Amino acid sequence: MPGSVMDNLAPAALNTDLCGLFAPRSVALVGATDHPSNFGGRVFRAMLNFGYKGKIFPVNPRLKEIYGLACYPSVKDLPETPDHVGIIVATERVFDILADCAALGVPFATVYTAGFAETATPEGRERQARLIAFARSSGMRIMGPNCNGVINFVDSFAMTSTGAIGRAKGKAGNVGVISHSGGLGQITVMWRAQMAGLGVSYEASCGNEADLDTLDFARFMLRSDTTDIILMAIEGFKDGAKLQAVALEALEREKPIVVLKLGRTEAGGRAAASHTGAIAGVDDIYQAAFKQYGMIGVNTCNELYETAILMRKRRWPKGRRAASVAATGGNIVHLADMGADQGIEWAEYSTETQEVLTSMLPGYGSKILNPSDLTSLATGEPAMFSRALATIAGDPNIDAVAPIFAFVTRKQIESGVQFVLDCPKPAAMIWVGACTDDAAPTAEDLVAAGVPVYRDALPCLRSLRAAMDFGRRVAAYQQKTDVPQRPAGISVQAARDKLGGHNGTLTERESKLVLAEYGFPVTRERLASTPAEAVAHAREFAGKVALKIDSADIPHKTDAGAVRLGLQGDDAVDRGYVEVMEAARRHAPDARINGVLVQEMVPPGVEMMLGIISDPVFGPVVAAGLGGIHIEVLRDVSYRVAPVTPADARAMVNELRGYKVLEGVRGMPPRDIESLCDLIVRLSWFAHDFRKEIAEVDINPLVVMPNGKGARVVDALIVKSK
Amino acid sequence: MPGSVMDNLAPAALNTDLCGLFAPRSVALVGATDHPSNFGGRVFRAMLNFGYKGKIFPVNPRLKEIYGLACYPSVKDLPETPDHVGIIVATERVFDILADCAALGVPFATVYTAGFAETATPEGRERQARLIAFARSSGMRIMGPNCNGVINFVDSFAMTSTGAIGRAKGKAGNVGVISHSGGLGQITVMWRAQMAGLGVSYEASCGNEADLDTLDFARFMLRSDTTDIILMAIEGFKDGAKLQAVALEALEREKPIVVLKLGRTEAGGRAAASHTGAIAGVDDIYQAAFKQYGMIGVNTCNELYETAILMRKRRWPKGRRAASVAATGGNIVHLADMGADQGIEWAEYSTETQEVLTSMLPGYGSKILNPSDLTSLATGEPAMFSRALATIAGDPNIDAVAPIFAFVTRKQIESGVQFVLDCPKPAAMIWVGACTDDAAPTAEDLVAAGVPVYRDALPCLRSLRAAMDFGRRVAAYQQKTDVPQRPAGISVQAARDKLGGHNGTLTERESKLVLAEYGFPVTRERLASTPAEAVAHAREFAGKVALKIDSADIPHKTDAGAVRLGLQGDDAVDRGYVEVMEAARRHAPDARINGVLVQEMVPPGVEMMLGIISDPVFGPVVAAGLGGIHIEVLRDVSYRVAPVTPADARAMVNELRGYKVLEGVRGMPPRDIESLCDLIVRLSWFAHDFRKEIAEVDINPLVVMPNGKGARVVDALIVKSK
Repeated sequence: MPGSVMDNLAPAALNTDLCGLFAPRSVALVGATDHPSNFGGRVFRAMLNFGYKGKIFPVNPRLKEIYGLACYPSVKDLPETPDHVGIIVATERVFDILADCAALGVPFATVYTAGFAETATPEGRERQARLIAFARSSGMRIMGPNCNGVINFVDSFAMTSTGAIGRAKGKAGNVGVISHSGGLGQITVMWRAQMAGLGVSYEASCGNEADLDTLDFARFMLRSDTTDIILMAIEGFKDGAKLQAVALEALEREKPIVVLKLGRTEAGGRAAASHTGAIAGVDDIYQAAFKQYGMIGVNTCNELYETAILMRKRRWPKGRRAASVAATGGNIVHLADMGADQGIEWAEYSTETQEVLTSMLPGYGSKILNPSDLTSLATGEPAMFSRALATIAGDPNIDAVAPIFAFVTRKQIESGVQFVLDCPKPAAMIWVGACTDDAAPTAEDLVAAGVPVYRDALPCLRSLRAAMDFGRRVAAYQQKTDVPQRPAGISVQAARDKLGGHNGTLTERESKLVLAEYGFPVTRERLASTPAEAVAHAREFAGKVALKIDSADIPHKTDAGAVRLGLQGDDAVDRGYVEVMEAARRHAPDARINGVLVQEMVPPGVEMMLGIISDPVFGPVVAAGLGGIHIEVLRDVSYRVAPVTPADARAMVNELRGYKVLEGVRGMPPRDIESLCDLIVRLSWFAHDFRKEIAEVDINPLVVMPNGKGARVVDALIVKSK
Repeated sequence: MPGSVMDNLAPAALNTDLCGLFAPRSVALVGATDHPSNFGGRVFRAMLNFGYKGKIFPVNPRLKEIYGLACYPSVKDLPETPDHVGIIVATERVFDILADCAALGVPFATVYTAGFAETATPEGRERQARLIAFARSSGMRIMGPNCNGVINFVDSFAMTSTGAIGRAKGKAGNVGVISHSGGLGQITVMWRAQMAGLGVSYEASCGNEADLDTLDFARFMLRSDTTDIILMAIEGFKDGAKLQAVALEALEREKPIVVLKLGRTEAGGRAAASHTGAIAGVDDIYQAAFKQYGMIGVNTCNELYETAILMRKRRWPKGRRAASVAATGGNIVHLADMGADQGIEWAEYSTETQEVLTSMLPGYGSKILNPSDLTSLATGEPAMFSRALATIAGDPNIDAVAPIFAFVTRKQIESGVQFVLDCPKPAAMIWVGACTDDAAPTAEDLVAAGVPVYRDALPCLRSLRAAMDFGRRVAAYQQKTDVPQRPAGISVQAARDKLGGHNGTLTERESKLVLAEYGFPVTRERLASTPAEAVAHAREFAGKVALKIDSADIPHKTDAGAVRLGLQGDDAVDRGYVEVMEAARRHAPDARINGVLVQEMVPPGVEMMLGIISDPVFGPVVAAGLGGIHIEVLRDVSYRVAPVTPADARAMVNELRGYKVLEGVRGMPPRDIESLCDLIVRLSWFAHDFRKEIAEVDINPLVVMPNGKGARVVDALIVKSK
C-alpha cells in the first residue's frame, strides 16, 4: 500500500485486532436480566439462544442467577477477566462500570446505553468526549455508545437486542454487514439479506462510534477469511484518510465494500443529525470518494444486499460488454433498456457466434441481436438453449453473461445454475418466474447455495455494472496506476515562499504567482501604481487589456465594479485606471490597495472553474466544472479527494454533464482536455501539499484553448486557513 | 369529456364492447390439440383447467375429440356461432379460417399465429395489412396476430399458452394488465403482481395489434366495474389522440393507468423493432404525454405492480406533504432521503400535533421531526404508538401517512392495518420485517386482503408520489382546468393567408409574419433591396441593427456567413449589406434572394428555443428549452402535445434543469415567465391549427425580457409539410 496514505493513520488503529470483541473466549453482560422484554433481558436471552460456546457471566446486583447461570453483583466480582464486557446500565453509571473493567484489564467493552452525543445536548457531548478520552487513556477498545452490538454468525456469538437474530441462526455466510443504526442494519439490511438467501459472517451496529468506528469493523471483516464482501449503511465517516486506507485494503484483497450513505438529502441530513448526531457532510464528495476509492455507492438497503448476490463471488468482468438471452421478446426489450441505463454495452456477437446461432435459429434472418430473443430454442430444446448460451459465453466480444429464465422445469433451472457456475466469465441468472414441475428450488434457495440468481433484471444489471467497475479499479490498483504521481515542474518551496507572506485572502495577482509555481499558465500581467504606468504596461502587451483592482480587501472585484475589460489605446487605459480606482474606493473606502493590475486579454475559449474545498471528512478536495451557469444553476461539478491521478482527473472531466462542450459543439474546435486534466492533477497536489495552509482556491475562469494550445488562468483566488 | 378530443376518434372504435372477447358464451379454438407441450395443446388445456363455464368447441380436422369434447373438422362445421374464435394454425392458413369465421358471423377472433409485421419482411408486412383490411371490411374485431390472447379472472375464461395461468387460478382482483409481449405481461408483470398479493381482473397480451390495440383493451377494462387500475407494458402507442381519449376517460373514472414504455433507449428500441415491429418513437415525448394526460410512467415491471398496491385503493392525497414514523432511527433517515428524492415534502407538524407528541415523548426535546423516530413509544407501548399515528394522521399539515413497521407482533400488525384502512387520509404501511409471534400474516397476505402494504420504503414513496400527482390531475380534470383554451388575439385566417403563398421553408421574415398573427412579439425589421434602402431602414430603427440574408433557399443564415450583428452608422450598414449579399452568393450561387433583412437589435435577455415537432404518434408537439448549449449539449428540452394549457406550459418551463436562469441568477433580474408561458400556449395552438400544413417550427432565439417586459422573437423558421 502506498506509504503516503498509511502514514496518516496512527499505528495503534492499524494494529487493532477485534477478534476478542467478535469472538470472545468469555463475556460478561452488565445489566443482564431475566425480564422477557427489557433491553438487558433481550440481549442476554439472544446470547444464550445463539449457541455461544464460551463462558457467560451475567452481572446484576439484584439477581443471584439468570436462566441457571450464576449472576455476579459487579464486574469486580467476576471469577476471571472476560474478553468482552457488554454494558446496559443507566447513563450515569457507565463510567463506573468501565473503570471496573479497566481495572480488571478487560480489552473490549460495548456500551449499549444512550444519552451521549446523539442527544445533541452539552452534557451528552461532554459524556461522549469523556468516553473517548477514557478509551485512549485506558487502551480499552469500546464499541458504542448508543449501539446494538455485534453478531458473529461464524462462531455463534451475539450480544445484541435485535429480534432479527433468532430468525437467522446458523446461516453463516461470507457477507459482512456494518451499520450505525441497529434497526436499519440488522433488519432492513442483514435480515433482509438473509431472507434473500445470503449468508452473513459478522454484523456490527456501531451507534455513536466514540472509539471503535465503522471502518475498524470493516477492517476486521476484510481481514477475516470468512468475509468476501462488506455492506455498510452509514450516516457518515469520521476520517477520510482512514476510509481510503480501508478501501485500498479492500482492493488489495479484492473484497468489495458496498456503501449506502444515509442523510444524502437535506431532509435525510436533518433526520441523521437527530439520530446519531452525525454531520452529513457534502454528499457529492462522498459519492466522488467512493468512486475514487473503488467502493460501490448505492441508494437503498435493497441495493446493498442485491449487489452482494453477485459480487460475493468475487469475479470481475474484463469490460462493460454483457450479453443476455431470454425466451420472451418483451423481457429482452426491457433488459436492453435497463442495461443501457446502467452503462452496460450490449456488444455485437462475433462472426463465429453469429454463425453458430444462425444455424440454430434458421428463421431469424441474418443477424442475431444481443440481448437475444431465443423463444423458439427455449420452448423447444433445452439442450440447444444451453449450447447457445455456451457459445455466447465463449464470444471474445462478451465480458459477462446474464440469461433470463421465466417458467422453467427443475432440469432447466439446474442447467442454468450449472452454466452460471461453470461459465468462463462472470455470469448471473435472472429468474423472473417459477419452477413448473417442483416446488423447490426457489431463487432464495439458489442464492443460499451460492448461485448468483436475481428475481429481477434491474438489480442484476446494476450489480454487473458494479462488478465491472470494481474489476477495473482492482486492475488499476494492481498495476499501481491508481497511485497519484507528482508532476514535474512543481516548486513547493517557491510556492510556500509566495504564499507565506500573506494572511487571509490573496489577491488575484498573488494567487496566480503561487499557482504559477505549480505549473499553471497564468495571464501576463503587471501591477500599475499610476495611470501612466498602466498605459506603459498595456503597450507592452500589444493588444486589448483588462484592468482590475489589486487589493486583498476586495476579493470580489467585479461586484465592486473595479474591473474593465477589453481596453485598447492609451486613452482608454488611462481612463480605465482612474475608473477602476474610483470604483474600488467607493466600494471599500478603507481597503488597502496595491494598485491596478494590467492584464493581457486571453482569446476566447471554454471557461472552466477549478477549485479546492476543505472537506471536514476528506480534507482537501478538488472540484471542476464548466463556468457560470453550469456551476451556479445546474450544479454540474465533479469532485475528487486530493491528490488525484490523471485517470481521476479525466473521470472528473468526463462525468460533467456539459462534457461535450469540451469535445467541441456548434462548429467549435475540440479543447485541450489533456492540459485541463494536467492542471487538475497539479491543483490537487497543491491542495495536498498545502492542506494545512489553504482553506479554499477558486480558479475561475480557466480558459481552455483548442487542442494543443493549453489553457490559461484568467482569474484566481486563494483563501488561507484561519 | 371535451368534444374536441373525442371527435378525433372514429365512432366505431368508441362503441366497441369487448365483452364477447373476454367473456364469450361459447368459444372455438382452431388448432386445439391434445399434445402436452405444443402451443395449441397448451392453450386448450389451460382453457379447460381454468374453469370456463361456456361451451368449448375444439377445431382440428385430424382429431375426433379432445379430452372428451367433440372436435370439429372446421369452423364451418360448428353447431353454433361462437362469440370468440382462437386461431392457432400455420400462417398461410390464417386467412381461410378468418373467412370461415366471417361467413359464420363470428364477432371476435384472436390470431396467435406469427409471421406478420414482426418479421420485418415485405411478405409479413403485406400479410398484416391484409389482416387489417379484412377486419375493417368484415367488421370482425381481431386480436393479434403474434399474440398470446386474453385472461379473464373474473369469469374464469382464458385462451392463452402461458404457464403463469395455472399458478394463479381464482385470484380475481381489481388490477388490469395489458402488454404487447406475452412473456413480459403474463409473467414479469401479471404473475409477479399476483405473487405480491394483487388480484388481477383481466390480462391482454396484444402482440402485433393489427386491429384491436392496447388502448381498446384499456378502454374495456376502464369501463368494467371489476377493474380499478390498469398496468400497461407497451412498446409504443399507434395513435396519440386515442391515447389521450382513453387517458381522459381514466381521469373521469378516477382509475389510474400506469405505463411502462419499453424500448426507451437505443438498445431497447433496436430490440423492440425486432420483437413486434414497434417503432419506438421519441421517448421524451412519450413521457411528456404521460404527464400531460395524467398517466403514471414507470421504468420497470416491478414499479408497475408496486404502484398498484397503493393506487388500486383509489384515494388521492390532497398535496405532496407526507408523514411517517418508525421505531428505528436509521430507517427514518433512509426514508427521509428517499422521500426527498421522490419530491415528497416531509412537512412540519402543526403546533397541536407537536404538543401531543411531545407529551408522549418527554425525552425528545422541544420539536419532533417528520419523519419521526418513535423508538421509545414503539418498543414500550403499542397503544401510545397508535395514538401518535392517529394524531399525525389528523394533522392539517399532512396529506398522506406511511408508517414503517419492522419486527412486530401480530397484534401490532393488526393495529397498523386498522390504521391504514381507517385513516382519514391516504395511507400505506411499510413493513420491512416479520411477525414475531405468528407465521402468518405475510405482507403478501395483507396485500391480498386489500391492504396497501409495502416491503420496502422506496416503492411505497414512489407510489405515494404517483397518487399525489394523479389526484392533482383528477382535480384539474374535474375543474376543467385541463382543457386547453384558445388565447385571444389569434387570427387563424390571417396566418393561413401568410403561410399559404409559400412552399417548403419560409424565410425568417415570412415566418415571423405568420407567428405575429398568433400574437408573437417579433423584432421590428424591413427588407432592403439595395445598400441605400438598408441604410434608410437602419436610420428608422435608431440604434444598432442586424443584417440577415432573406432567402428561402438559405435557411441556415449564420452557417452561410450571411448575418451581421450590432451594426451602427450608415457606413457600417452599407458595407454590411454588401458583405451579406456576397456571402450568400458564395454560399449558394443559385439561391433566390429576396434581399437583406434590416432588423432592430433586441436588448440582451435569456435566450430560449421554442419549437414544434411533428411526432408520428402524437402529432404536433411543442418543445421548449434554454438556448444554445442547454439544448445541444445538455438536451434540456421539455415537450407537450399541442394544444397545451397555461398549466402545461408552466410545467414545461419548471421541469427544465436550467429553470433557475429564468428566475434570475448572478444578479440578473427574474424573467417574464408569464409571457413565455403565454407564447408556449400560442405556439401550441398554431401547431394544432396547422398540424396538416406544418412539419416543423423553430423559434430560436426567443429573447425573454425581465419580468413585465415580455419576450421577443429574434429568429424563426417555419418548415411546411411536404
